[in-house]
Amino acid sequence: MQPKHISDTMIEQVYQVRPEHLNGSGRLFGGRLMEWIDEVAGLVAMRHAQSNVITASVDNLKFIRGVYQGDLLVLIGKMTYVGNTSMEVRVDTYVETLDGMRRPVNRAYLVQVAVDQKDKPVRVPGLIVETESEKAEWEAGIRRRAMRKQRKEEGF
Amino acid sequence: MQPKHISDTMIEQVYQVRPEHLNGSGRLFGGRLMEWIDEVAGLVAMRHAQSNVITASVDNLKFIRGVYQGDLLVLIGKMTYVGNTSMEVRVDTYVETLDGMRRPVNRAYLVQVAVDQKDKPVRVPGLIVETESEKAEWEAGIRRRAMRKQRKEEGF
Amino acid sequence: MQPKHISDTMIEQVYQVRPEHLNGSGRLFGGRLMEWIDEVAGLVAMRHAQSNVITASVDNLKFIRGVYQGDLLVLIGKMTYVGNTSMEVRVDTYVETLDGMRRPVNRAYLVQVAVDQKDKPVRVPGLIVETESEKAEWEAGIRRRAMRKQRKEEGF
Amino acid sequence: MQPKHISDTMIEQVYQVRPEHLNGSGRLFGGRLMEWIDEVAGLVAMRHAQSNVITASVDNLKFIRGVYQGDLLVLIGKMTYVGNTSMEVRVDTYVETLDGMRRPVNRAYLVQVAVDQKDKPVRVPGLIVETESEKAEWEAGIRRRAMRKQRKEEGF
Amino acid sequence: MQPKHISDTMIEQVYQVRPEHLNGSGRLFGGRLMEWIDEVAGLVAMRHAQSNVITASVDNLKFIRGVYQGDLLVLIGKMTYVGNTSMEVRVDTYVETLDGMRRPVNRAYLVQVAVDQKDKPVRVPGLIVETESEKAEWEAGIRRRAMRKQRKEEGF
Amino acid sequence: MQPKHISDTMIEQVYQVRPEHLNGSGRLFGGRLMEWIDEVAGLVAMRHAQSNVITASVDNLKFIRGVYQGDLLVLIGKMTYVGNTSMEVRVDTYVETLDGMRRPVNRAYLVQVAVDQKDKPVRVPGLIVETESEKAEWEAGIRRRAMRKQRKEEGF
Repeated sequence: MQPKHISDTMIEQVYQVRPEHLNGSGRLFGGRLMEWIDEVAGLVAMRHAQSNVITASVDNLKFIRGVYQGDLLVLIGKMTYVGNTSMEVRVDTYVETLDGMRRPVNRAYLVQVAVDQKDKPVRVPGLIVETESEKAEWEAGIRRRAMRKQRKEEGF
Repeated sequence: MQPKHISDTMIEQVYQVRPEHLNGSGRLFGGRLMEWIDEVAGLVAMRHAQSNVITASVDNLKFIRGVYQGDLLVLIGKMTYVGNTSMEVRVDTYVETLDGMRRPVNRAYLVQVAVDQKDKPVRVPGLIVETESEKAEWEAGIRRRAMRKQRKEEGF
Repeated sequence: MQPKHISDTMIEQVYQVRPEHLNGSGRLFGGRLMEWIDEVAGLVAMRHAQSNVITASVDNLKFIRGVYQGDLLVLIGKMTYVGNTSMEVRVDTYVETLDGMRRPVNRAYLVQVAVDQKDKPVRVPGLIVETESEKAEWEAGIRRRAMRKQRKEEGF
Repeated sequence: MQPKHISDTMIEQVYQVRPEHLNGSGRLFGGRLMEWIDEVAGLVAMRHAQSNVITASVDNLKFIRGVYQGDLLVLIGKMTYVGNTSMEVRVDTYVETLDGMRRPVNRAYLVQVAVDQKDKPVRVPGLIVETESEKAEWEAGIRRRAMRKQRKEEGF
Repeated sequence: MQPKHISDTMIEQVYQVRPEHLNGSGRLFGGRLMEWIDEVAGLVAMRHAQSNVITASVDNLKFIRGVYQGDLLVLIGKMTYVGNTSMEVRVDTYVETLDGMRRPVNRAYLVQVAVDQKDKPVRVPGLIVETESEKAEWEAGIRRRAMRKQRKEEGF
Repeated sequence: MQPKHISDTMIEQVYQVRPEHLNGSGRLFGGRLMEWIDEVAGLVAMRHAQSNVITASVDNLKFIRGVYQGDLLVLIGKMTYVGNTSMEVRVDTYVETLDGMRRPVNRAYLVQVAVDQKDKPVRVPGLIVETESEKAEWEAGIRRRAMRKQRKEEGF
């Protein structure tokens, strides 16, 4: 299995917020945004692993500002860290105004596990980390992984 | 504002997994489950705050087992902790087999902020914590809050 | 097959009305409410029968008041009567205001038939009827059953 | 307000059953069919009343046979009876096989009330009843109306 | 295979535009209308071919006026031309006002190919063309077919 | 209004085909693909025009191969030609296999008109055409425009 570049699997998705995406008070329904984020993370991980994937955990999902009807949403998903069978994907969400400016809405890290037809974990290719910011994300990915383990042991 | 009991606002939701809820490999689409979890958390928080709410963060979302077409899913949402304007809601997801047994699928903690018509945060009622397990959750809620702050400061 | 209590299978579901649930004049689309009612009735019957079920008939579906965007809807489904292979489920729908008051929107009775993998009817467990109101519902269930037969014979 | 012919407002709708319309056991989800039936009844009544309408009641909804993926469904809605502000619409559902044969799936009667912008009932035009079968439906409509009243008084 | 009349397979569908059908600026989402048009064309072709069909091409899709929430949309699909394995279907879309007037919104021609279980093209029945306008459509169908071939050769 | 580069507004969208996207025979529902294509074209045009847009016409929509559950679909939308108030967008659809190969599914040209709040056409920025292939597309765009006019005059 050939290791892959982060740019090989990166995804940049754009949506316009329509009335069917709103909650009862007329803002973007948070659950709908989570659905889009999970879809993007899964697609990035499928491209990296060349197999089906399962979302194992989501953390650090923070909503910074509201999103409204007619807004353009941009979701950017990229690989940050890989283990043996798991991959960490970062998904950044922005509101893009019509003059092209992007304001951050959310940043999430999702752990995806590569699986075979019977849902058994399978090995994933290595990740080629090149730029300084990619290296920093990899290091932070190691710390997030440790924090997930620690939380699990502490039972919360 | 009268403080409220956890049982006043608790919600137990049941769904059957239909083909429209599946992903490309025939399992429950993780994004759809997140949508349901966010909806339940928002409903619990709205009942507590008696106002609109916004999802501020989601953490510790762990998927323990796969879910398939025809499965009954049970989502139980309850208040665990309240601050001035924010509330923490725990949502547990189970698969329920036809003999009534429940196996855990996921546990998530969502922070919801009460807002007025202009999306400005508003105060929420206190939470009456009675049983030992409710008290333990409240204590853990304080620790989770501190951990969220720490992660924010460390920038990840 | 062990007979079951009504409380064993009862379901209480909560939804917030979002724009995607509205009709062309901005009220809750009646067809969407029927979909939710049918889903709840089917879930209650599946829990009672421990098998798949088919909706055989719906009657006495009356809409008492309108429902609007942002409203919380509460649907409560419970067993009222069982025959050999059929079950009658009552689904009550309420609008819940933010101070916790519930105003009735609809009451429906749905007959569900338990079926095996080939859609052949199968026997269902007995129903344990205890309180006065449960007994009254059972008696009314017998009368509704007779009325359904009579209507069928009269051809309308 | 000019009275109208039944043929002026009649609707014949065709759908193919896709995976998104199925329930957890792979049959057409009953709630989805109810949604389509309610939509057809509402459209017929809107055409007759030339105003918005509200579904007031549904009765005698009987499902005669199962419907599966790929089946063509035909829904035929027509006016059967009018009062001052209410209209009764019959919706017949058929499965249409590829050789053009139609087998009945369901017959439902829905009472629709014409309303103005503030949801207040408004008068509807008369219905021109011509053929023997139209007259028989009108007579049966009067009997169904009486039965609905009687059921209401008996409280079920 | 018996040839068929255009009236044997013609479909007239009615929808009311609900909030879930709107785009970000509050008009009917064009993609949703295309979905309805494709569905109608496929149903007409399935009825003609008595087999599954695949949309091979869509052309000349022109949107003449906007459509808004609450509008009644009428889609009329009818066969215009048949080849060996392909069929051309015209779908006309109208907005119907409450007084029964119809204003055109769109006219589209869709080519559908009849296929067997393995997606291999299969022969379709002939089309009985009777009236002057049906004959004119058939002639225009031949010209549209030639134009599609020419565009294909010219690579655009 | 500053003219824009094609790369400024280009969009590359990825979807995985889920059961809710399939038609009655288990292939990707063509109407759903049209919905995605129209959405991408509208987003590209909105980015170019910095205003709302309306789909004016779609032509030359050809489906080259079938798409199935689990397939990754890639849609690439880019500006090809601009007039005073209208823009032509090309949307190419590919199936992407897990080894990263892309096979073409469809190529469509959509004309979008920029509009203000009252749906009146407004001027759009110029398009900077640089590479040989961009120039060739611009020339072809002029010819397609002439062909659309000719078809309109010939009434089909």
